[in-house]
Order: sequence, then structure tokens, then C-alpha cells
Amino acid sequence: MAEPYGFLGLGIMGTAMVRNLIKAGKKVVVWNRTASKCEELVQEGAKAGKSPADVVAQCPITFAMLAQDEVALEVTFGPDGVLNGIKEGKAYVDASTVGPNTSKKISDAVTKKGGRYLEAPVSGTKQPAEQGKLIFLTAGDKSLFSDVKPALDILGSKALFLGDVGNGARMKVTVNMVMGTMLNALSEGLALSEKAGLSQESLLEVLDAGAMSCGLFKTKGPEMLKGEYPVSFPLKHHQKDMRLALAVGDEVAQPLPVAAAADQNFILAKSLGYGNEDTAAVYKALRGTEKRV
Amino acid sequence: MAEPYGFLGLGIMGTAMVRNLIKAGKKVVVWNRTASKCEELVQEGAKAGKSPADVVAQCPITFAMLAQDEVALEVTFGPDGVLNGIKEGKAYVDASTVGPNTSKKISDAVTKKGGRYLEAPVSGTKQPAEQGKLIFLTAGDKSLFSDVKPALDILGSKALFLGDVGNGARMKVTVNMVMGTMLNALSEGLALSEKAGLSQESLLEVLDAGAMSCGLFKTKGPEMLKGEYPVSFPLKHHQKDMRLALAVGDEVAQPLPVAAAADQNFILAKSLGYGNEDTAAVYKALRGTEKRV
Amino acid sequence: MAEPYGFLGLGIMGTAMVRNLIKAGKKVVVWNRTASKCEELVQEGAKAGKSPADVVAQCPITFAMLAQDEVALEVTFGPDGVLNGIKEGKAYVDASTVGPNTSKKISDAVTKKGGRYLEAPVSGTKQPAEQGKLIFLTAGDKSLFSDVKPALDILGSKALFLGDVGNGARMKVTVNMVMGTMLNALSEGLALSEKAGLSQESLLEVLDAGAMSCGLFKTKGPEMLKGEYPVSFPLKHHQKDMRLALAVGDEVAQPLPVAAAADQNFILAKSLGYGNEDTAAVYKALRGTEKRV
Amino acid sequence: MAEPYGFLGLGIMGTAMVRNLIKAGKKVVVWNRTASKCEELVQEGAKAGKSPADVVAQCPITFAMLAQDEVALEVTFGPDGVLNGIKEGKAYVDASTVGPNTSKKISDAVTKKGGRYLEAPVSGTKQPAEQGKLIFLTAGDKSLFSDVKPALDILGSKALFLGDVGNGARMKVTVNMVMGTMLNALSEGLALSEKAGLSQESLLEVLDAGAMSCGLFKTKGPEMLKGEYPVSFPLKHHQKDMRLALAVGDEVAQPLPVAAAADQNFILAKSLGYGNEDTAAVYKALRGTEKRV
Repeated sequence: MAEPYGFLGLGIMGTAMVRNLIKAGKKVVVWNRTASKCEELVQEGAKAGKSPADVVAQCPITFAMLAQDEVALEVTFGPDGVLNGIKEGKAYVDASTVGPNTSKKISDAVTKKGGRYLEAPVSGTKQPAEQGKLIFLTAGDKSLFSDVKPALDILGSKALFLGDVGNGARMKVTVNMVMGTMLNALSEGLALSEKAGLSQESLLEVLDAGAMSCGLFKTKGPEMLKGEYPVSFPLKHHQKDMRLALAVGDEVAQPLPVAAAADQNFILAKSLGYGNEDTAAVYKALRGTEKRV
Repeated sequence: MAEPYGFLGLGIMGTAMVRNLIKAGKKVVVWNRTASKCEELVQEGAKAGKSPADVVAQCPITFAMLAQDEVALEVTFGPDGVLNGIKEGKAYVDASTVGPNTSKKISDAVTKKGGRYLEAPVSGTKQPAEQGKLIFLTAGDKSLFSDVKPALDILGSKALFLGDVGNGARMKVTVNMVMGTMLNALSEGLALSEKAGLSQESLLEVLDAGAMSCGLFKTKGPEMLKGEYPVSFPLKHHQKDMRLALAVGDEVAQPLPVAAAADQNFILAKSLGYGNEDTAAVYKALRGTEKRV
Repeated sequence: MAEPYGFLGLGIMGTAMVRNLIKAGKKVVVWNRTASKCEELVQEGAKAGKSPADVVAQCPITFAMLAQDEVALEVTFGPDGVLNGIKEGKAYVDASTVGPNTSKKISDAVTKKGGRYLEAPVSGTKQPAEQGKLIFLTAGDKSLFSDVKPALDILGSKALFLGDVGNGARMKVTVNMVMGTMLNALSEGLALSEKAGLSQESLLEVLDAGAMSCGLFKTKGPEMLKGEYPVSFPLKHHQKDMRLALAVGDEVAQPLPVAAAADQNFILAKSLGYGNEDTAAVYKALRGTEKRV
Repeated sequence: MAEPYGFLGLGIMGTAMVRNLIKAGKKVVVWNRTASKCEELVQEGAKAGKSPADVVAQCPITFAMLAQDEVALEVTFGPDGVLNGIKEGKAYVDASTVGPNTSKKISDAVTKKGGRYLEAPVSGTKQPAEQGKLIFLTAGDKSLFSDVKPALDILGSKALFLGDVGNGARMKVTVNMVMGTMLNALSEGLALSEKAGLSQESLLEVLDAGAMSCGLFKTKGPEMLKGEYPVSFPLKHHQKDMRLALAVGDEVAQPLPVAAAADQNFILAKSLGYGNEDTAAVYKALRGTEKRV
């Protein structure tokens, strides 16, 4: 009914998502700033739109998965942007990770023109995107959430509706804050084991045998020991989310001393040049790889 | 071959462990400072010894599960203590959680008299003890580890041998340090959600749907939201382990800034009177329950 | 030569500064949003201007001491604002504490119209303002710094030129970051003394007898012990400066773990309702006044 | 009346102290483990004793300035130790920095034999010792404090009586904890200035012009900028005092999150090999000298 779906932004995440929609038999009209990225998907069955406005014009519901606030704003408000296509009956679902203010600005503009808006940042990176196991943290128009639920169920394993626009972004940085502290907990445990002459493999084994067993430790622990950090979530982006979560804490006067300490370790890792490596590289900063031999 | 097993110390943990040995068809000679605690187990098939020395005299391998360093030392070195029964052919497996120094002292004394010693603190509390799912972090005499492995397999789901005496204690506090930081990560996430107007239940749901899903969060998260903290691991004991782990870090010059921040929250919780509640009560300290309404 | 001086903003600080200029025999044309605040100074010899533009038109050099970024922008860019009077030969010295971006925006606008601009936030609060002992942290037009130096020497005990616009603001938050950590150091020392049964007065005496003796401790220490916090620098403003300093650290990848911990205590103090008290009230948060009796 | 004074321990501090007593016209009987260190002082007028017991036998009041707990215990309880000379009418003033437990043990032994004991650790290092400007943090026998006050006034600029034995040690580590946090505050300010392109000299100038001006910053600031750390207080000793202060906080349930963060930086500095440099070298750890160029 809601087909074809529009989809703006064909990076690693967006491409994987579109592919899953196609595999599920859905019609998709795609657009990307660098048009060449559309080709492969067109061969797989997608149709290419000429501009964000053109995509919105062709589709009742358009998704976006864009890199950052600036791009999200440009794609919305720029020439031939999303807004040019928005009118009553049109809906825009933004899965990009943007700040609450950006989200609010886009929401207001879309709503003013009679459209519906859903903020829908995801928890999960490349692999979950490919496997259709993303978690959607949505907020905004609840009727749109219901209408788009079938598509979200193709793209992800869970979709939550969290209330007012901005709550999706806030929940996402809160979740990533917990993850950031957990990575520091694991890093400190491994670094301490090594210095104290304990087997690091044994620590991972003990952690995995009890109540702390989790996918994060199963994946990142061995990577830390090998010193190989295939980029799933760049450290500098994780640090940005920690910063945003701490800013929310500041705003609502909730002390977050442990997350603040964890954030400082990510900043230390950035200062050591690990910003573009996977977030697990925070271990190197705590361990003092090169330096503290 | 190694039967009957001796067992000293019949608190919550020790009683559950003896019961599992009996259920597995093993003969056990028990002793407890307060003798009345032996009665129930005697009815279930155990035999009561008169003193630690008496138990050791009757059994090739004797386990201990005692409350703290002072008790472990008294039971070993005191009148009619373990040492009085130790000679060649006798083995002592101490599952109590004691500091590395205490462990070393007992080990030296046992070894000097021709006996074998295994330090074997456990990861896991009441429930794993009852279910035979403890994790043993052993160190000391490797041949004894092999000989006692069948019994450890009855009592627990995993037994690691970690090298020199002291490594068991060090590994245990390292594991509990990681757990302490994780509990703070969860607490800060929940406190931030509440203050920022996000659904705390949704946060738990998101955490449980992805790579951070773990038994610890599944158990402690809902307890934090209910404000009920059935004591599985008293906060003050957890804080003691954090302190010991930080002391190891200090000794080997490994900075542990995130664990140090987490430790301070446990101290804050103690200052607020939560020391005897479950360790999950650290959430109340971070949230500021009574005060910051 | 540069007289009369213009002066915009007659709050506690501005009023004290104008008074010092008048006492030194200088002619001053003043303006304040609430015009009644001009009266007293007019009686003391100042002349009242009709608007920021009017003041700038009458004076070669105009100072401003305004409450915050929004006001500084309004006074500059608003109707009858500073910009309306700026042309070649006019200079604007903004002693308000504003962010580097605001400062840059005003600087660009003033310069574009042919005027000269000096960012000149101060270190020091009410008392130093009254005593002419402010410290000026200036940046921007170096020739203007030279021209305005005689006036700065009347208003303060020191004036530094720090280079490009923005450096004044950055230096100010760096200085206040150091102060924020120092206040936490003192607070923790006093709180520890009390809990450990040591005389807090003795601690202050020892601190004052050695290398740590400083005006800050001399003033704030006794206030903390009395529990009286006459507002010299509101805690919430100090916390804002800590936040800004940490943001600079984040931007340039300089870890600041101790300041981050101190900032969290200020946030804790805000959450307890101490935001409008003097910054020294952070002691109450660390001590746990009401709660941890 | 109380002359001659006994003096045990002729390190840098002890030698300077004895010299000041001699200059003030006092008779002193000295002893040092390495006897050759007595020679110079004997030429200046001191008399050499054969053992701690011999010194105590000759003097109504004997001072000690020893390196650490082990030495203090050996000198007291060892063969020909202090205790052998103690009887009614004899007094022992221990200016060594030892833990509260060691202090208590010595106090009990001295008192049991009818002697009087004063714990008297000092705040201040080499230079204040030479200039007679030490600060004595005494505890124990109040009548002895009165009797020894004239000598303390020669050796120092201030002497406080703090109550029960142990309070001297506790006050000393509290004072050094405040100092440790202050050094971190200064270090972070300087590191931030550098990274943000601000003049570090200007930061020191601003700090010195206002309420934060203190001898500590005047001395350590320029040393940090030069990268020269003449050892006045070895970093590893300062870190030990931080650790002890945090242990007191833990014991009395007083959270000290900022000092804990500062302590971690000292541990980082130790891990980088700066333990034997002056405590101001913590700046190098925060700045990341070698690495983060």
C-alpha cells in the first residue's frame, strides 16, 4: 500500500537497507548524492530518482539514511530537497543519526507543509543492517510509526516508539553511552590482567561463562587481544555520542561521572590518533600500547 | 578415589556446595564453627567432623568456603586447625575469597608440611552455587587441580587454572571490577533516561535486543526500576573487590580511571547507607532517590 | 584623547567599572537597557546616551559589559545597535563573557564596517571590579589594545593581549576550569577531614601556612565551614565555564579527566538545587549536607 | 631544660633539622644507621650516640626523622632500639611519615614502658626544612606537645596538635591529597592552553594575578613549561599519599571522585616511568609529551 518506498542516502547502511527491502519484494525509488552508487541497486530492481524532491513526489513514504546533521539539513531544505515534494499524504522517515535540534527543525518544516515525520535513528551498524537486525528508536508521528512498521520489520528486529521528536536521538546516545562505558570496563579488565600477569584469554573466558556474557565482549574482546580493529563503529563517532549523552545529562542535571571518565578515555584515544579505528581501539589508549612498554 | 571429601564452612555457599556433592553420590565429612549447621547435611548423608584437623585427617582432599581472611587464617593456623592434619598425601582446596597475601601464607604453611594447596575462589553467588554453576578461579598446585577437577565439575560449570597462588584472587577482583563498572553503566543509563523523559523500560528493551544483552542487565535492570534489591552480592563486598582491584592496578602501575570513578559511586552508596543492600543499589546513589526528586 | 569613553551595560560589574573611570577623571557616556540604572552614575558625572548607536556615535572607544551571548548580539545587531554607529575611527571593546563564536560574529561585523574590535572578558568578580583589580583577557585588534590600555589600567590590575579573537574567551574558561578543580580539591579535603574526625579549621590553617596558601582558599574555606555562600560567582555559571573548557579540550583532543570529574560534582550540585548559590556550594554536594548525616 | 635533644635519622630532612637546632644553641645527640652521616654534624657541635637506645638514654626528648614504616619499626623495636631506652621521664617525637597503624604500634609500646609519644609528621620538604619553616602535624601526648613546642618553633613555622595518635598521619595525607589535585588542575590548564593555541605563560600570569596565586603554582608552573623537574617531592611518594588519603575516604565512606581521578593520573605518570621525578611531572603524563606531539 505504502509502496513504492523512497530511499535517500546509499552509504554502507543505506545500501544494505534498500537491498533488504528489495529482497522482501518491495518497490524502492533511490537517490544518492553521488549518483553512481544507485547503479548496483538499480540492477537489483530499484528505480533511480532524480532528486530528493523527485523521490518524495513518487513515493508516499520516503526513508533517509544520511551521514550527519549538515547533510540531513541540505537534503531537506536544499534546492530540489525533500521539502519541495512534501505535501499532505507524504511521509518522511529519517533514520540518520542527527541531533535533537536538527530533528526538530526538519519535523517542523515537514509538518508545516502537511506531511508526517518520524525520527528513526538505529542502534546497530553494518552487520545488523545487512542481516535486517537493526533496532529503530523512533519518535514523532505515531500514525506514521504504525504505517511504516511493516517496512521497519523488514529492516530490523525491533522498533520502538518513544514519543516526541528528539527522544529517538536521546535514546540512541544513551544506549551508546552505556556501550562506551562497557567497552572501557572490558578494556580496563584486559589491561589490568596483562599488567598483573593474568591470562587475558582466561578473563574473557570467565566473563563469557557468567552473567556478563554478551555479544559485545565476545566480538570486541578477541579483537582487543589481537590488536585488530575492523571498523564497525568509528571511535570518533562513538566519542561524539558520548559527548552528546553527557550534554543531555548536563542539561537535565543528571551527574554521569563514570561515563565522563569513559569519555575522557575516548578523547585520549583520539589524541593518540585512533579516531578512525573501531571504537574498541580505546583499549590501546588504556593499555598504553606503544608507550608504556 | 579422593573420597571422602572434607568440607569446612557451611554458610549459604558451602551448604549448597556440599549438597551438590552428596547429590552426586560423593561422601563428605563436614565441619562448621557453629556445629548446628551440620545437622541438616548429616541427615542428607554427610558425616560430621570434630574439628578442621579431624576432617583433614579423615579425607585426602578438604575444601573450605569461609567468610573472610581472618576466619580462613584461624581455621588454618588455630588450635585443631587444618595444619594439624596436613602431612604428605593431604590436599587443601580453599574456595574462600581471601586476599593474595592470606592465600600465600596458607599455601606456604600447607606446602611446608608436605601437603598440596589450591587457591580456588569462585565467581558466582547463591544461585549458581545451588545450581552447580560456579566458576572456579584456581591457582597453586596444578596436580591437585587435576585431581580435584571431577569435584569442581560437580560444583561448577567451569574451572580455570591460573598459575601461581594469588592469581585466583587477582582474577576474581578483576572480574568483579568489570562487573562493578557495568552496573554503573546501566545505572547511569537508567538515571539519564528518567531525567530526560525517556522510557526506562524502553532502554532495557533496546539493551536487551542488541550486542549488550546479558544476564546481569536482565536481572539487575528490572530490580533497579522496581527499587527492590534482593541481596545476591552485598554492595559493601562488591566495593571491597573494586578497592582490591584498584590496589592491584596501583601496584602494577595500570591506570584504571573508569573503575576508579565507579568505585567512588559505590563509596557514595555506602555513605548513603546502602552497603548491606544488593550491589545493584548503586543505582539509587547515582539517581539520588530520596533527594533529587 | 580617547575620551569620552562609551559604556554599555550597567549591571554590578559595569556600574563598578564606570565609577572607577569617573573617579579617575574620565568622561563616560553610558547606556543601559533599563535606563533607570543610568541615573546614579549621571549624578556622579556620567552622561547618558540614548542607545548603543548613540553612545558609539559620541565616543571613539565604547566598552560593553553585558550579561550573555544573546544580549551581546542584540546590543550589537539590533535596532539602534552598536553597528549603526560603527565606522572608521570607532572602536568597540567587549568585556562581556561570550562564546568564541559570538565574539567572532561581532568582530567580523565591526571590522567590515571599518571599526576596530577587542574581545576583553575579565577574570574577577564584584570585588575586583570595585577595586579596579580586574584582569583583562583581550584578543583581536592589537592597536586597539594599545590605545585602550590606559583605561584598562584604571579598571584592572592586569591586561593581557592573547592574539586572535576567541582566545580571550578560551583563556577565561581555562582559568575558571583550574579554579573549579581547586574548589573541588578544597571541598574534598574539608569533607574528608570532617568524616575522619580531623579539625577542619586545622586543615585550613595548614593549607594557609604553606605553598598552597591562596586568596581563593582564604575566602572560600571559611564560607564552606560556615555554610554561608554569599554569591560572588553563581555555581551554575561556573559550571557553564567548566563545560565550555571541557568542550575546548574535546575539540583539540586534550583529555581533562580531573576537570571532568570536577564538572560532574558541579552538575551534582545543580541537581541538588545549589545552582544559584555561590560556586563554593559545590562543597555541600561533596559533603552530602542534608543527607549523609 | 629538655636538652640535650636526641635525633635519629640524618637524611636530607633530618640533617637540616639538626643543623637548625645547633644554630639555635641547642645540644643534640645524633644517630644514623650509616654512621658516617654523623661526622659533619659532630664537627658542627653535635654529639654522636652509639644506638637509638643510647641516644634515648642520654636525652629526655628524642626526635626521629626516618624514611618509612619499616625503618621506623626497626629503629623502635629492633636490638638496641628506642624501646630499650624508654622508661618514665623519656619522650619520643616521631616526625617520620608513617601510616596510622605504625604510629599506633609505636605509641602503644612507648606508653607501656612509661614514656610519652608524639606523632609529628611534617608538611614541607627540603627547602622548608633548611629554612626552619616546616609545619608539624602532631598528635598523641598533649603535655609532650607543650614541652617540645620550643624545639618545634625552631624547626618549623607552625605546629598543630590534632588529638589522638593517627590524626597527624591522616592530616598529612589529606593535605597532600589537596596538593595532588591542585597539581593536576594546573597541569590540565597548561596542557589545554598548549593544545588550544593559547600562551601558557599568559595562563600562569593570569593565575598569579588573582585569587589562585600561590607558591605551588609559582614554583611548579615554570618547571612544567621548562620540562625540568628538580626533585623536591618524588612523584611516587606523592602518589602513595594520594592512595592513603583515598583509603581513609573509603574507610569513612567519604566519596572523593576528583582526588580519585587525580590519583589515576599519578599512576599513569608512574606507568610512563616518571615515579622518581618530582611530583610536578604529572604534567607530562597529562600532556602526553613524547607521544602526542
